[in-house]
Amino acid sequence: MGKNRKYAVSPKRDENYPEWYQQVIKVSDLAEHSSVRGCMVIKPWGYALWENISRELDDMFKETGVKNAYFPVFIPLSFLEKEAEHIEGFAKECAVVTHHRLEQGDDNKLIPAGKLQEPLIVRPTSETIIGESFSKWISSYRDLPVLINQWANVVRWEMRTRLFLRTSEFLWQEGHTAHSSDIEAIERTNMMLDVYEKMAEQYLAIPVIKGRKTQTERFPGALDTLCIEAMMQDRKALQAGTSHFLGQNFAKASQIKYQSSEEQEEYAWTTSWGVSTRLIGGLIMTHSDDDGLILPPRVASSQVVLMPIIKKEKDKEMVLNYTQKLANEIQDIYYYNRKIRVEIDNRSAASKNWDWIKKGIPIRVEIGPRDIEKNSVFVGTRDKEPNEKTSYLKNEFVSILPELLDNIHNNLFNKALNFRKEHTKLIDNKKEFYNFFTPKHSNEIHGGFALSYWCESQECEAKIKEDLKVTIRAIPLDAKNERGKCIYCNEPSMIRVIFAKAY
Amino acid sequence: MGKNRKYAVSPKRDENYPEWYQQVIKVSDLAEHSSVRGCMVIKPWGYALWENISRELDDMFKETGVKNAYFPVFIPLSFLEKEAEHIEGFAKECAVVTHHRLEQGDDNKLIPAGKLQEPLIVRPTSETIIGESFSKWISSYRDLPVLINQWANVVRWEMRTRLFLRTSEFLWQEGHTAHSSDIEAIERTNMMLDVYEKMAEQYLAIPVIKGRKTQTERFPGALDTLCIEAMMQDRKALQAGTSHFLGQNFAKASQIKYQSSEEQEEYAWTTSWGVSTRLIGGLIMTHSDDDGLILPPRVASSQVVLMPIIKKEKDKEMVLNYTQKLANEIQDIYYYNRKIRVEIDNRSAASKNWDWIKKGIPIRVEIGPRDIEKNSVFVGTRDKEPNEKTSYLKNEFVSILPELLDNIHNNLFNKALNFRKEHTKLIDNKKEFYNFFTPKHSNEIHGGFALSYWCESQECEAKIKEDLKVTIRAIPLDAKNERGKCIYCNEPSMIRVIFAKAY
Repeated sequence: MGKNRKYAVSPKRDENYPEWYQQVIKVSDLAEHSSVRGCMVIKPWGYALWENISRELDDMFKETGVKNAYFPVFIPLSFLEKEAEHIEGFAKECAVVTHHRLEQGDDNKLIPAGKLQEPLIVRPTSETIIGESFSKWISSYRDLPVLINQWANVVRWEMRTRLFLRTSEFLWQEGHTAHSSDIEAIERTNMMLDVYEKMAEQYLAIPVIKGRKTQTERFPGALDTLCIEAMMQDRKALQAGTSHFLGQNFAKASQIKYQSSEEQEEYAWTTSWGVSTRLIGGLIMTHSDDDGLILPPRVASSQVVLMPIIKKEKDKEMVLNYTQKLANEIQDIYYYNRKIRVEIDNRSAASKNWDWIKKGIPIRVEIGPRDIEKNSVFVGTRDKEPNEKTSYLKNEFVSILPELLDNIHNNLFNKALNFRKEHTKLIDNKKEFYNFFTPKHSNEIHGGFALSYWCESQECEAKIKEDLKVTIRAIPLDAKNERGKCIYCNEPSMIRVIFAKAY
Repeated sequence: MGKNRKYAVSPKRDENYPEWYQQVIKVSDLAEHSSVRGCMVIKPWGYALWENISRELDDMFKETGVKNAYFPVFIPLSFLEKEAEHIEGFAKECAVVTHHRLEQGDDNKLIPAGKLQEPLIVRPTSETIIGESFSKWISSYRDLPVLINQWANVVRWEMRTRLFLRTSEFLWQEGHTAHSSDIEAIERTNMMLDVYEKMAEQYLAIPVIKGRKTQTERFPGALDTLCIEAMMQDRKALQAGTSHFLGQNFAKASQIKYQSSEEQEEYAWTTSWGVSTRLIGGLIMTHSDDDGLILPPRVASSQVVLMPIIKKEKDKEMVLNYTQKLANEIQDIYYYNRKIRVEIDNRSAASKNWDWIKKGIPIRVEIGPRDIEKNSVFVGTRDKEPNEKTSYLKNEFVSILPELLDNIHNNLFNKALNFRKEHTKLIDNKKEFYNFFTPKHSNEIHGGFALSYWCESQECEAKIKEDLKVTIRAIPLDAKNERGKCIYCNEPSMIRVIFAKAY
């Protein structure tokens, strides 16, 4: 297949990246816009991905002692008013419930009735409502730590939406913990960031940088916001998960107090941390290509598809039986502690090979009468070109399947890591910095991540944002103590930070 | 322990059943009311129960070819107006979103702003919004059947709420399927009822009667509503799950059309089916006693608790090590396809044995220095009296653990089944029927389930409801074709139905 071959997705990435993104979601059948403004429908192929991601995360949370619980979807307005900074940052765009009944109007239309004394908002995040519960559950140091997670839908009214990346409703998990010391709470904040890093790198095959947000970019009300940041194929940054050390701010707002072992009344130290269906957006933009979605094997909706190729009716039964037997064999194999997920596509559609390429399944297996004769299978993997297929003896294929999946994972991860390295640059010169973020032609993209010195003033941060739409994505946790000069104002600086355009 | 022993829950069941129910939830730490009207907080011990129930159900759904997806939490008012009967039955009490922003008012209070052009309601059920998607997904008979399930929160505004049984917000699953023939849709309706029966009887140890609702009690817009009904310890009925054959009603409302193999345009036949966190209410009211919760083993939040008994500091390390080793051994054992869930309670609290009795854990194991010397463990099971404990050799205990759990399951199921049989009566005499449902003393309860003839008129059904607050819970699926006279009007009848008071 030459360089000029046709691709399954139009436009291609380098033609129109945002539109390519929408098309990948469409051809892979992950999700679609609903008729409800800003809300998406997650279709089975997309939801299976979320189920796999959340199952792995859930196990990791539980290993650290976290338990799941569930709190109300509604938050009374008065709760939001408790934490001043929080409300400043959050409460602006949200769904407000004002009535609890519908009545038939004059023209037979339904109209809202039964006005609520106090309006409710649909949770944009649950610190305040969970804080209310914590204040009841906690009275002594013996009750601490409390380690809770919730899997839930949340709503943040968005004017401009993009599937998975920014929707009015999305699915997420939010962890909330309370501790008797700041040290323990900070440890938990870091521990959960490590869990997110593990999810991103070892499951989603997305290399991430662990860092700390600047004050400007922090979660409203937090003392510290840690994050993992990834580079997408358009070289923009995507924040893939955050873990917040909330100090005693929310404990004070919600009156989460406990009697210490010295019989003093103290406010608890709290944390919160979350990832969402946005991870799916990140996964798409990290790996997919001009032929559609590429699913990282360890969370893939399905990992292997078996495609019987039947040209003569007389072969049909034999080929279908062989395929079913192979499927049974495969689904008893474990990969990464889970049974391998296998599909059979019995359709006679000419498009079926390409349908699965577009859907991003890691491994495609063709099984025809001649393969069966030779006891072999014909295998394509999604990290390679569509026509690059290998013939394996069936038994060999079955035995190396976990290895094949691992190879795909590693290829995807290394490709993304190299891409990020290639487009990350140490820049110490202001002009170079401005050039880096200013495409020279209309169809060119900017440079990527700039590692540059910053004097820690909000003013310089704001100016750069104003000039270039570039923000500080993270102060890397592994940043060395260096000395340089702020890329904007030239004043002395101690830290290099990551500047980038971002989702 | 004599008959006059103290019990952990006050009041007892026979003193005040509704209050006993609340107290069981409280002492077992399952859930609590939140400060948001009608909404509950599901605490970790309660949520784990829901996780186990939903995991088992999810596997059963998937075995029948169902896939999960996710649809918007909001439904535009106009969607509800499409299906006349549906709106009549449903749209009355719900949470109505009218604004999408908050603004700071004069007194610094937050006020709703950004009025929506069309109000949205928070989904009470998703037939209409999922129907919208189905209409887009389905165009040919080749696209059918579509078999979708959603795990979600739903909201139905309730004035009087009871934890798990009736709350404004609850968690559930709702299955929605579309088919090319009525026969196939009806088969699916029955198939999912069988899944619910299996969940109730084989997992929750709740015996249920499968039946069909009368027209009065049907889901609004359905042609047929199948249900499973259980008897609680106050002899009232609880509807534990429903499966609806919707005919073409919703397909017509949502324009779910397909081209048949004869190239005719046809409306699809649809079904929907759901169970909710209400199952937990049913589980509590079926099994629990005056000492608190009793958890059926196959879905129990946790199945075994190990309680080291340490009286001397010198024994501590040895006993804790022994306990941890035993826990490791136990959690590698499978019961009902899942690894056994085991807890260690290292607290020195005197109350710990009773804490676990109240929480309803199936098996409690005491481990002291003398047990360890004899290599034995001291075991209590929740289906027996609290002081009835048995000493087992440790290895024996480990090997019979699955059997012990099975015994508890069977004991709970049989006890509930006998209770239902004892309080179910064939009644063919109107006076006897009225007596059956009219307690003679204020602290007596009514009789239970009456199996009586009914002439199939809505009028008789309504009169009985008016007189006795008794409704037809189900026309049993296994009802024989009999001939009798309506218990109310004495007109000829072909069917015996189940009359009962209900939750």
